[in-house]
Amino acid sequence: MFNFTFNLVSMNIPLSSYPRIVIIGGGFGGISLAKKLSKKEVQVVLLDKNNYHTFQPLLYQVSTGGLEPDSIAYPLRKVLIGYDNFYFRLAEVNEVYPDKKKISTNIGELTYDYLVVATGSETNFFGNTEIEKNAMSMKSIPQSLNLRSLILENFEQALLTDDYHERDALMNFVIVGGGPTGVELAGALAEIKKGVLPKDYPDLDTRRAQINILQGGDRLLDGFSDQASKKAEDFLEKLGVQVWKGVRVTGYDGKTVTTKTDLVFESATVVWAAGVKGAGIKGLDAEEVLAGGNRINVNEFNQVVGYPEIFAIGDIAYMVTEDNPRGHPMVAQPAIQQGKLLGENLANLIQYKPMKPFKYFDKGSMATVGRNKAVCDINGYRFQGIFAWFVWMFVHLFFLIGFRNRMVVFINWVYNYIKFDREARLIIRPFKRDYSQFKD
Amino acid sequence: MFNFTFNLVSMNIPLSSYPRIVIIGGGFGGISLAKKLSKKEVQVVLLDKNNYHTFQPLLYQVSTGGLEPDSIAYPLRKVLIGYDNFYFRLAEVNEVYPDKKKISTNIGELTYDYLVVATGSETNFFGNTEIEKNAMSMKSIPQSLNLRSLILENFEQALLTDDYHERDALMNFVIVGGGPTGVELAGALAEIKKGVLPKDYPDLDTRRAQINILQGGDRLLDGFSDQASKKAEDFLEKLGVQVWKGVRVTGYDGKTVTTKTDLVFESATVVWAAGVKGAGIKGLDAEEVLAGGNRINVNEFNQVVGYPEIFAIGDIAYMVTEDNPRGHPMVAQPAIQQGKLLGENLANLIQYKPMKPFKYFDKGSMATVGRNKAVCDINGYRFQGIFAWFVWMFVHLFFLIGFRNRMVVFINWVYNYIKFDREARLIIRPFKRDYSQFKD
Repeated sequence: MFNFTFNLVSMNIPLSSYPRIVIIGGGFGGISLAKKLSKKEVQVVLLDKNNYHTFQPLLYQVSTGGLEPDSIAYPLRKVLIGYDNFYFRLAEVNEVYPDKKKISTNIGELTYDYLVVATGSETNFFGNTEIEKNAMSMKSIPQSLNLRSLILENFEQALLTDDYHERDALMNFVIVGGGPTGVELAGALAEIKKGVLPKDYPDLDTRRAQINILQGGDRLLDGFSDQASKKAEDFLEKLGVQVWKGVRVTGYDGKTVTTKTDLVFESATVVWAAGVKGAGIKGLDAEEVLAGGNRINVNEFNQVVGYPEIFAIGDIAYMVTEDNPRGHPMVAQPAIQQGKLLGENLANLIQYKPMKPFKYFDKGSMATVGRNKAVCDINGYRFQGIFAWFVWMFVHLFFLIGFRNRMVVFINWVYNYIKFDREARLIIRPFKRDYSQFKD
Repeated sequence: MFNFTFNLVSMNIPLSSYPRIVIIGGGFGGISLAKKLSKKEVQVVLLDKNNYHTFQPLLYQVSTGGLEPDSIAYPLRKVLIGYDNFYFRLAEVNEVYPDKKKISTNIGELTYDYLVVATGSETNFFGNTEIEKNAMSMKSIPQSLNLRSLILENFEQALLTDDYHERDALMNFVIVGGGPTGVELAGALAEIKKGVLPKDYPDLDTRRAQINILQGGDRLLDGFSDQASKKAEDFLEKLGVQVWKGVRVTGYDGKTVTTKTDLVFESATVVWAAGVKGAGIKGLDAEEVLAGGNRINVNEFNQVVGYPEIFAIGDIAYMVTEDNPRGHPMVAQPAIQQGKLLGENLANLIQYKPMKPFKYFDKGSMATVGRNKAVCDINGYRFQGIFAWFVWMFVHLFFLIGFRNRMVVFINWVYNYIKFDREARLIIRPFKRDYSQFKD
C-alpha cells in the first residue's frame, strides 16, 4: 500500500528518504497543517501563488482604508523558518495526475506521496459573467486594494461632475450579500461616510452618499442566531445603511444593478459578496469528487473520495457529518482544525496507525458592524454591542499571524477609534474607468 | 499689474473674491506652501497626480521590506482639512498657458492668478533609453513596490535554476549611483542578505548574493564631508557591499551592465540612482526657463524668470546664489523652506508689499547605512556611528507627516532592530519576467 514514488528531482527540491507531502495553498488550513508536520518524519512542500498568507477576515478593512495590506499578510517562508526538510515554492498549480502521483505547475512538475488540496475558495458569481466583469470582489489583497482605489476615485470623480445623476451613482455603494463580509464592509463604509468623507470632501454633499446592502434571503448573517441577525440589522440601520432583504440581483452592467423585482440601483461601486465556491483544481475526476459549490467530497479523514493519497482541507473540502449535513462553514476555524488533525493523521498513516475522524468544534461566529458594535454567538452565549466588539477585536488580534502585524493592527485600531479616521487611503492601483456612462 | 483674471468655473472649483493660487505638486514644497497659506486671504487649489504625499527619504525601506507603503504616505486631502477656500484635485497637468493664465489637465482647464510649480524631480537616465527600459528606479511608491517584488521574485527564481550563471545573476544587485539613495539601499540590501535571506532560503547559498554600488566619481555621498564619505564607504564594506568608484555605466540590456571600462556585471536587479532631473512642465518657454538638469530658472523670490505670476519651488527650481552657485541640493529642506517663504511672499505680493529673498538654511546632511551605522554632517559637526543613527531616526520620524505614520514606522523599526527582520515582504505587484536570458 505504501510504495513511495521515486521522486524526480524537480523544482530543485531534493530527494528525501521521508515521504513527500505536497500542500497546495498557504491559507489557514495549509499553514496549520505545515506547522503540525514540523516535527514529523516527512518532507513537506508548500505551494502558493502568493508568497504570503492572507488574513482574509480583515480584508474589508484594507478596502476601507483602516489597515495597510502588509499588516494582514505574513510571508509564507517565515512560517516555515527553522523547519528541516520543508520547502516553499511560489507556484500556480495547473493540474493533478493522480495515476502518476504528480502535479504540474507553472514552474515545473512535482511528484508527491501525499497531496493536500488546501486551495480555499473564490468568489462565486453563479455563472453571471456580466456581474463578474463589472462588480468588485474582495477575496485577496490585490482585490481589496482595487476596491479601495475605486471607492476613493469615485469620490474624486463625484467632485468634478455637475450632473447629479452621475454624482449620486458615484457615491452609491451596493453590497450584494448579507453575510459577515457584506455586513462588515457596509458598516465600515458607513463609518467612513460619517467620519472621513465630510472632512475630506467639504465641497461635496456627502450626505447623499448611500450604502445599500442587498440580501437574497429574509435575514442577514445566515448561520448566526436570530438575535445576532436582528441586532446586526439594527446596528446597520443606526449607521444609516439601507438594508434590503429578499432582493436577488440579476445583473450589473457597470452602471445599473437590476434585481428580480423592479428595484434598480444606479451605482459605480458594486461589491459582490453573495457567495463563494471552492477554488477547484484540474485533474480530479469531476463526477465522483465535486460536491455542491465546487467543493471536493472528502471522508471523515479529509481523504478525497476515490483517491487515498489525496486530501482536501478547509473551504475546498466538503465533508458531510451529522452536525453539518451541508458541509462545514467556509470560514477559518474548520480549515485550522482540519489542518491540525490531518497533520496527526498523515503521521499515523505513514506509520500504519489508524487515523482519527474529524470532529468540528464550533467556536462560534462573530461579525463587527462598527465602532462598539459587534455580534457574537459563542458556545450558546449570544451577546451584542461593545463587549462583543472587544471580543471580536481580541479574537482577531489573537488569530492574526505575527507579533509585528498584531502591533501595527492594534495601533491602527486605537488611532482609528480615537480619531474617527481611516488613514490608509492611498489610491495605489488606479483604475482608468470610463465614467461617461453615468451621465444622462 | 494685479488684474485678477476672471476665473471660469472649472473643475467645479467655485469663484472666489480672493486671488487663486494653483499649486502643482503635493510634495514637501507644495504642502509647506499650502499650510503657510492657510491663514491668508487667498483661494488655494492643490493638484497632484496622486491622492497622497510621499515621504521619499524612506522609499528605500519600502523597497527592502522594512516598511509598508501606507506608513510613509499621507492623504493630501487630510493636509488641507479644516482650511477654508482650499481645494484638492487629483489631476495630471498637461500644459501651462502663461498668456491666458491657465493650465490644462486631464480633468479640465483651470485659470490661476498665481501658479506654483512644485513638481519635484524624476529619475534622470541621461537619455539612455535602454537603461530606462531595463533598470528600476525608486522615486515613487509604485516604483518602490515594483523593486520590492522584483527582488523577492528573483530569489524565488534563483531557487529553481541549476545554472549557476543564472543563479548568480539573479542574486547580484547593481546599484548605480553613490548618493544617499544608493548608499541607503545598498546598506539595507546588505542587512537583508545577512538577516533575512539565509533563514528564508535555507536551500539557497545566499552567501553568493552580491551587492554592488557603482559610483561615477571618486567618492560616495557627493556633497557630504570627506569624513562622512569615507566612513559611509567603511560601513558599506563592513556590511559586505562591493563599492566601485570611478565606474561609469554605459548600458544595461536587462542582463549585462556595461561600463566605460571593461568591467561588466551580470545582474537581474539593477537600480538606477545615478541622477535626478526636474519633472518639467510643458508651456514654459524652454530657452529662457530651463536650467541644467531640466530645472526651472527662478530669481531669489522663486519667481520663474520671465513669468511674474509663476513660481517654482523645491527640486524643480534652479536658484543660483552665492552659497549655492549650482542651485540648491535637490532634497527636502530647500523645498520646505522655499514653500514656507513663498507662502509669506505671495501674501505680501497680493498686498503690494515687498517680497523677501530666499536664503537657504542648510540644516545638514545625513544618510544611514545600516544598523547603528549612519553619517551626519550637521552645522559643521561631523559624526558617524550609533549616535548619528539615532539622530537620523529621530529626524526622519519628526519630519514624517502624521501621528499614526510615526507610530507605525517606529514600531516597525523597533521590531526590525530587535528581530533582525524585515516583515513587509509581500510580492504585491508581480512581474512576468523572462528569465531565460540569464541562461547560458
